[in-house]
Amino acid sequence: MAMNVNYKKQNGTDRTKSYGSKSAKTKPPVKQHYKHKPNTAKKKSQNNQSKVKPTVRIMFLGGLNEIGKNITLFECNNDIFILDCGMAFPDGDMLGVDLVIPDFSYVEENIHRIKGIVLTHGHEDHIGGLPFLLNRVKLPIYGTALTIGLVGNKLKEYGLFNKTQLNVVKAGDTIKLGCMKVEFIHVNHSIPDSVAVAIHTDVGTIVHTGDFKIDCTPTTGEMIDLARFAELGKEGVLALLAESTNADKPGYTMTEQTVFESFERLFQKAENKRIIIATFASNISRIQQIIYCAEKYGRKVAFSGRSMINYITVANELGYLDVPEGVIIDIDLLKRYSSDEIVLVTTGSQGEPMSALSRMAYSDHKKVEVGYGDFIIISANPIPGNEKTVGNVVDELLKKGCEVVYESMYEVHVSGHACREELKIIHGLTKPKFFIPVHGEQKHLRKHAELALSMGMEHKNIFIGDVGNVVELNESYLKQLPSVQAGKVFVDGLGVGDVGSIVLRDRKHLGQDGLVIIVATLDTDNGSVISGPDIVSRGFVYVRESEDLFDDVRRSVSDVLYDCAYENIHDWSTIKNRVKDDVSKLIFERTRRNPMILPIIMDV
Amino acid sequence: MAMNVNYKKQNGTDRTKSYGSKSAKTKPPVKQHYKHKPNTAKKKSQNNQSKVKPTVRIMFLGGLNEIGKNITLFECNNDIFILDCGMAFPDGDMLGVDLVIPDFSYVEENIHRIKGIVLTHGHEDHIGGLPFLLNRVKLPIYGTALTIGLVGNKLKEYGLFNKTQLNVVKAGDTIKLGCMKVEFIHVNHSIPDSVAVAIHTDVGTIVHTGDFKIDCTPTTGEMIDLARFAELGKEGVLALLAESTNADKPGYTMTEQTVFESFERLFQKAENKRIIIATFASNISRIQQIIYCAEKYGRKVAFSGRSMINYITVANELGYLDVPEGVIIDIDLLKRYSSDEIVLVTTGSQGEPMSALSRMAYSDHKKVEVGYGDFIIISANPIPGNEKTVGNVVDELLKKGCEVVYESMYEVHVSGHACREELKIIHGLTKPKFFIPVHGEQKHLRKHAELALSMGMEHKNIFIGDVGNVVELNESYLKQLPSVQAGKVFVDGLGVGDVGSIVLRDRKHLGQDGLVIIVATLDTDNGSVISGPDIVSRGFVYVRESEDLFDDVRRSVSDVLYDCAYENIHDWSTIKNRVKDDVSKLIFERTRRNPMILPIIMDV
Repeated sequence: MAMNVNYKKQNGTDRTKSYGSKSAKTKPPVKQHYKHKPNTAKKKSQNNQSKVKPTVRIMFLGGLNEIGKNITLFECNNDIFILDCGMAFPDGDMLGVDLVIPDFSYVEENIHRIKGIVLTHGHEDHIGGLPFLLNRVKLPIYGTALTIGLVGNKLKEYGLFNKTQLNVVKAGDTIKLGCMKVEFIHVNHSIPDSVAVAIHTDVGTIVHTGDFKIDCTPTTGEMIDLARFAELGKEGVLALLAESTNADKPGYTMTEQTVFESFERLFQKAENKRIIIATFASNISRIQQIIYCAEKYGRKVAFSGRSMINYITVANELGYLDVPEGVIIDIDLLKRYSSDEIVLVTTGSQGEPMSALSRMAYSDHKKVEVGYGDFIIISANPIPGNEKTVGNVVDELLKKGCEVVYESMYEVHVSGHACREELKIIHGLTKPKFFIPVHGEQKHLRKHAELALSMGMEHKNIFIGDVGNVVELNESYLKQLPSVQAGKVFVDGLGVGDVGSIVLRDRKHLGQDGLVIIVATLDTDNGSVISGPDIVSRGFVYVRESEDLFDDVRRSVSDVLYDCAYENIHDWSTIKNRVKDDVSKLIFERTRRNPMILPIIMDV
Repeated sequence: MAMNVNYKKQNGTDRTKSYGSKSAKTKPPVKQHYKHKPNTAKKKSQNNQSKVKPTVRIMFLGGLNEIGKNITLFECNNDIFILDCGMAFPDGDMLGVDLVIPDFSYVEENIHRIKGIVLTHGHEDHIGGLPFLLNRVKLPIYGTALTIGLVGNKLKEYGLFNKTQLNVVKAGDTIKLGCMKVEFIHVNHSIPDSVAVAIHTDVGTIVHTGDFKIDCTPTTGEMIDLARFAELGKEGVLALLAESTNADKPGYTMTEQTVFESFERLFQKAENKRIIIATFASNISRIQQIIYCAEKYGRKVAFSGRSMINYITVANELGYLDVPEGVIIDIDLLKRYSSDEIVLVTTGSQGEPMSALSRMAYSDHKKVEVGYGDFIIISANPIPGNEKTVGNVVDELLKKGCEVVYESMYEVHVSGHACREELKIIHGLTKPKFFIPVHGEQKHLRKHAELALSMGMEHKNIFIGDVGNVVELNESYLKQLPSVQAGKVFVDGLGVGDVGSIVLRDRKHLGQDGLVIIVATLDTDNGSVISGPDIVSRGFVYVRESEDLFDDVRRSVSDVLYDCAYENIHDWSTIKNRVKDDVSKLIFERTRRNPMILPIIMDV
């Protein structure tokens, strides 16, 4: 690890003791007044503490009514810190958008009050927004070793590594951010080194679970630190913020161990076929299991897919993977081994078009050709919205003669998120006064709220929020304050925020119906046609088979231009509108389609 | 029903007796030699019957490796008939396409040998292609009363009703189509009056299940005629073609009765809220159950959605709905009743953007406003690919304060298709020599083939095919012949087949990255710039924030045009290519995006 990463010293077992981390200490003590949305209640409380109770404010800049883009701000006594800074993948209607990040305006406006960024784990929906934020502001980052390793890797790609202070903490540690103490609590999830946080303030303790599940027999690391959640419950928890991804799923998430048992059965079933397993690149525990299983059955493991190799490299360097000598081989050496000596671990479990598995399915992978003799396991469930693309990839692989294990055929995947019974345990242990369901779409948040109600929480103590919402709370109340600026910012190529609703509307229009361009050069003086009108179309109809239509369009445009010249209309925009109206009407009558009509007039 | 619909008389119980239907008799006996792909084997057999055994050919023009667009041709002794003629909905990558129909070239080329179209039931994936085929060829149609009623309705829309001979048959009937006898067998499905067919030929009997399930306690009509499948099995079935939609689902599809029980519980739970139920418009049995349940709980039923009203009207006219006096009211009369007196049945169970339920969710419905006090039941499962849109509609409804029952929260939906144990019963009863799984994607076809293998069928007697495939079979063999022309034809607005791969590729490009148009007027003689270059873009970037970029593009184009004039290049296409290359490169360097670049040069 590079020089700018601070490793926090283990703080022993005294969890209640708070540690100002080295890095937090080295940061100059900023204590400026914020300029936006002054918290008058709090100011009063600073002047006259006996009258107004102090409060905590929570600002949701992402992660509510959506999957991904998790980012939450906690404010107490004029100090703020940021919990997680994720990205989201674009919906189907965000055409051409590569990824979606939070609107960071509020962070930028309040930067002098912000003490740092705390991360719960290394998934993209919790760290993927960092490069875009750190491009604009400088803030120290706190996270566990694997999280910081992955963040470091990411920041190197963006040339931000040397400009950013990265601080490594351990579960059990507590750091001080302004007046707040943030304690890290070990949880289980689908990536190692995940933590929940307990935020200790003068007002009370707030617990945020991050992403978690309860796995009593995890394959890497310890079981979730339920004891600490219980202690916190005893001490008193003001508010619980808990993830809601599986809040509509009854029962428990199975232990990761079940996957190992399935892998064993499938490795036996595969016999002398080559085994190819697609899974999430970040699921280090899953990959660990594959490595162990491969070793047991005398197979070598190779990796395919850029993100897969990234994750493996970081996890391996930091000691999060136990790799027996000689088990991992380079993908280029595959040919030296027979099919029954190989396990190839690949990206593409979501059917992503450019991923390694998709390339294999569509015969577009440079190094791997699949067919009869391949035994392919998709060790992941399709994320909602990806079912169709995953299905298409499976079909292509089957057509090539591969054997494919997918969906719930075998237990080759378990979720990383707590189901209802697990959520109930956290609610039951922490016994919070207030509850705010986070990380989920409306239906997840509501189901989670219903769960809290079913455990005896009062309706008025539950807040279902939206992106931009701000709540203020202390032991007596939880109330909503006016919202702050927040939302989706689209990243497309190098552009951040230069694609918005107008650009997307045009893309949708162009994508659905194509385009008809009409160009003519007119005489500036009398509006007579010097050249054209020419018609160019794309994505509309087969031009060759539609010559009659285009002739009629040309004729119609000529008529309009002639009329305009005759009527002495020299206003280009009036002429353009008349051309557009006539052509739209003609085309719709003939085809029942609405291509974008673009009249361009040149004047000479 | 209009004059051109022939109602076949009930043929009693003698099922083995074959009936030339009235309409088949009135059809002039066409016996022409076909011109394409001569079946030499058969010709020989006609000349020298002792040497070559007669065969049946099956041509798959749709329904294999896809969901929908079902159409299969059966040929024996130079006679052909068509079984079903469906459409499919476009995939996400078929931008702007309204629907997908089969390529009918083979039908048109062989029209003189084709005796008619037989329909198994009235779903769009089995009848939706008819108007497009009947626009090009004239063929008599055979189907049960409800199916013919729905087809008639559809043909009226397309102005084809009076030109088409529609023949109503009943389950148990047999019609003669050339040398083949087609027997109709009652099955259960999610629309009443569904049938399987047994095709009796000199070569043997072929059973095609159509879409089916086994429901021993259906809510409308009889249980599937398993006895007839058993009889056919005893008589000997040469080949079974069976649907594969649920071939990967274990167990049984629950009876439609379970839905009634769920509805009852939910009607009680809804108390004095308004009940809104979204379901498939064609699911007459479901709608029947809603009507009965509404009557029981003292509510009136109104309908919303064009296709819903279409289906209800036809089903009601033909007596497929039992509507107690005064239960159904017009949607315009909703206001006269209180919430607890209403059930509104609506389209939109798949989250389709223009459907009634979506409009309600996004406050865009003209007659219905939803919110607190609405109890909404989505009585359907999302079809793969629709999960996200359905989820979004549910979220919007929840945000509005509606209570929403969706997915598997209650048993408010059962499939219309047979699961594995039901498929096994049909295999076990018919005991076919050959088996061809149909109606499904590759994974469904394979699972169905595995099922047949598990029941003792030999691998060589199973054929997994693709669209365009042709198989020839008789009692001794099943072999694949060269394929015939088949595939997808896109319907967009009024255009049928004028949107193909090039248009779709352009739409995709435009939709993803937008467009940059460069226009210049050049002097024809010396290539000097008379007007422009002007830059117009759509769907690319916010133009106002990218003025620098556009200035640089303009400069770059001017340079190219100057160079070309200087180098005496007058070939417009060379100039355009140079402009395009330079601009593409510049834009990619600056934005990492690849908009479509369209140089347009006018000459004066």
